[in-house]
Amino acid sequence: MIRALVWCENIQNKTQEDVISVYPDGMHNTIADFLNADPNITAKTATLDDPDCGVNDETLADIDVVLWWGHIGHDKVPDCAVEMLYERVVRKGMGLICLHSAHFAKIFKRLMGTSCGLSIPAPGHAPQKLWTLLPGHPIAAGIPNPVDIEIEETYSEYFDIPQPDELVFNAAFGNCASFRAGAAYHRGRGKVFYFQPGHETYPVYHKKEIQDIILNSVYWANNKTRGQ
Amino acid sequence: MIRALVWCENIQNKTQEDVISVYPDGMHNTIADFLNADPNITAKTATLDDPDCGVNDETLADIDVVLWWGHIGHDKVPDCAVEMLYERVVRKGMGLICLHSAHFAKIFKRLMGTSCGLSIPAPGHAPQKLWTLLPGHPIAAGIPNPVDIEIEETYSEYFDIPQPDELVFNAAFGNCASFRAGAAYHRGRGKVFYFQPGHETYPVYHKKEIQDIILNSVYWANNKTRGQ
Amino acid sequence: MIRALVWCENIQNKTQEDVISVYPDGMHNTIADFLNADPNITAKTATLDDPDCGVNDETLADIDVVLWWGHIGHDKVPDCAVEMLYERVVRKGMGLICLHSAHFAKIFKRLMGTSCGLSIPAPGHAPQKLWTLLPGHPIAAGIPNPVDIEIEETYSEYFDIPQPDELVFNAAFGNCASFRAGAAYHRGRGKVFYFQPGHETYPVYHKKEIQDIILNSVYWANNKTRGQ
Amino acid sequence: MIRALVWCENIQNKTQEDVISVYPDGMHNTIADFLNADPNITAKTATLDDPDCGVNDETLADIDVVLWWGHIGHDKVPDCAVEMLYERVVRKGMGLICLHSAHFAKIFKRLMGTSCGLSIPAPGHAPQKLWTLLPGHPIAAGIPNPVDIEIEETYSEYFDIPQPDELVFNAAFGNCASFRAGAAYHRGRGKVFYFQPGHETYPVYHKKEIQDIILNSVYWANNKTRGQ
Repeated sequence: MIRALVWCENIQNKTQEDVISVYPDGMHNTIADFLNADPNITAKTATLDDPDCGVNDETLADIDVVLWWGHIGHDKVPDCAVEMLYERVVRKGMGLICLHSAHFAKIFKRLMGTSCGLSIPAPGHAPQKLWTLLPGHPIAAGIPNPVDIEIEETYSEYFDIPQPDELVFNAAFGNCASFRAGAAYHRGRGKVFYFQPGHETYPVYHKKEIQDIILNSVYWANNKTRGQ
Repeated sequence: MIRALVWCENIQNKTQEDVISVYPDGMHNTIADFLNADPNITAKTATLDDPDCGVNDETLADIDVVLWWGHIGHDKVPDCAVEMLYERVVRKGMGLICLHSAHFAKIFKRLMGTSCGLSIPAPGHAPQKLWTLLPGHPIAAGIPNPVDIEIEETYSEYFDIPQPDELVFNAAFGNCASFRAGAAYHRGRGKVFYFQPGHETYPVYHKKEIQDIILNSVYWANNKTRGQ
Repeated sequence: MIRALVWCENIQNKTQEDVISVYPDGMHNTIADFLNADPNITAKTATLDDPDCGVNDETLADIDVVLWWGHIGHDKVPDCAVEMLYERVVRKGMGLICLHSAHFAKIFKRLMGTSCGLSIPAPGHAPQKLWTLLPGHPIAAGIPNPVDIEIEETYSEYFDIPQPDELVFNAAFGNCASFRAGAAYHRGRGKVFYFQPGHETYPVYHKKEIQDIILNSVYWANNKTRGQ
Repeated sequence: MIRALVWCENIQNKTQEDVISVYPDGMHNTIADFLNADPNITAKTATLDDPDCGVNDETLADIDVVLWWGHIGHDKVPDCAVEMLYERVVRKGMGLICLHSAHFAKIFKRLMGTSCGLSIPAPGHAPQKLWTLLPGHPIAAGIPNPVDIEIEETYSEYFDIPQPDELVFNAAFGNCASFRAGAAYHRGRGKVFYFQPGHETYPVYHKKEIQDIILNSVYWANNKTRGQ
């Protein structure tokens, strides 16, 4: 059994109509639901609204992998929470999956050692294709190449990250934006996967292929095999 | 002084009107000309029409770096020529710059150990942007990010190459094609750079930015610094 | 079930007393035996003595991973066998584990694109420690750090391989030799692992830790998880 | 001209006889002296004894590369100094060369995103050989393989760093310790090189080969070529 914690800042989820209409139960619950549909995964959720912003010894107890989505509330996550996550990844081998705007999450920047900035070329949204660069990688198992996303926010280079240990996916957009969309890292005893799709106003996490990639990454981060 | 050899199969250069109109003197001469405009580089050319297909002890004598463009004539290059190039790269540290359709050149496949296949999504040509992923890399020095190419052939993933040691540029196209367009490798004592732009019917090698990247790569392959 | 083929040239196994005394049943059978002791693996063997040197459509049918040990008979393996192995790795995702002196196997050199040469500093044998560089990697799972090997051949740098995608182990020897002893690569759809320990006159493949590493690598090459 | 700043905590330099006897003028001055002997480099020094611990807008003005040696005084470097260094490396492309026990310097840990811990196997000192893994890398230019160091502190794996972009050197010691001794990284616009030799009680920085490696790294970090 893989024990996952889906963390979401849960701000726009509550206040923006265009987000609520896409994720009426909250994005974190959508993600936890498709994780929990896998018989080998138990997923719970945490948000900024919880005690200690959802990150403490109790919520992290026995957690194998954390999925993290944040955007406008990065600064509300206390530094001590970041250090708790960091220690668990680097020293104890906990997995970390950072989603979309979590490129700017404190914990991701802490583990990368770079600014993790990016650019968003006009018009800011466009059709996207997600291309597999490592067809033998477990995160790419069973994923069509490319994955078509009807519309997404146009994240683009220069994305200020260290060269990934494994660049599993690269995204291209209709406006010629380009982005290292699926980047895998060893960090100490743990593994980190950054995955770009998932803008809050588009129904990306409802897509089967995106769910499959995230499921694959949860297994990979735990050195487990999906469907074995 | 860096001694360069620009090798081109020189087939379409002679028979296709749409190629001749873009490169009336032959693509290899266009490339050699902008190399020779650099006071630290001496470039000569060789083609399939030359004795030994242009690759022998005489043409390679004292050569520091070979630039290679081939397309429909890959099979006309004899295996012994490939081994001469291979030995010079791996054992003696000669540089090799493989351009565009030279992704399928025998010498590139020999050095990569993979099939080096790729896909060309419809419509096969589109506007391109070339994005810098390693802004501190010497091949990216002085190059704008992105470089705009009005129209290019849409090379796309999956590009069957080993993970580059340094992925300097990635290309995205208006049709959402994505390609590892500037990939740098150590191979033995030598260095290899693959650079995608340069379809024979588009005036890509006339562009200042593309010339600058190729010039940078020639210096890099020789552990020399441009403009020092 | 993972279907493995253990290939061994089986030359010194038959003629050298110091090899026979260590592996009386042949090294390939020792390796196949500890693989077959795993309920999820079925291992068979092949040698140079078999039709087509043990490599043909029949012996490779349904094989998921090949383990390869060769030394003085590399040249006896026909090029067509090498191409069969290459195609299966790169196009179909078959795994390949190259052991010890198989650094010079034709198939390994074919997939690396480099000379794969190394040095053997005097006295040529010494105590060895095998150090884990990626503690979260599945091939390192459960392996003590370091692994002590009482005596091994002193393979040393410069080892002419491409930079590994994942350098899992590095070896140091009592005579200050240093070697990238556990090097993992993506090649096309397949995965390749080179693992240095296993000189024919030392009982290295009888060691539990070495068997565990090889077992881990067999699972890894198939995107499967040992002990899941 | 490359403008270098050699920073040293300068603690043991003042109080330990066994350090003073090796570096009577202070280790930082030894390093600055061999840098200044190069006509293309201007090196100055800074220490914990200086205002702002030697790190402020004035001392860093126009500096192209910082060399950093710290050991027992890491905690005395204020966090704001670390951020000044970090910003200059990642945003502006300043080079950083971290020497020996600076594996635990705040700025190195900040840029790596890992703990940067290591082990020191008994007896803690031994003869060392430094092996070149990338013979074509500019930092390895002209360096013999191996470099023999009569006696050094036995730094060993597991060294908790991200996989280097370029692992230029690996060290092995007479007690079978193994260490990634020369590790190069891109971080944002800048470059970082970690180089292990340089224990304070051994005359390592007096050795020609070690000086050559450090000189090479200073040029490399600035995309300049030594001896061009």
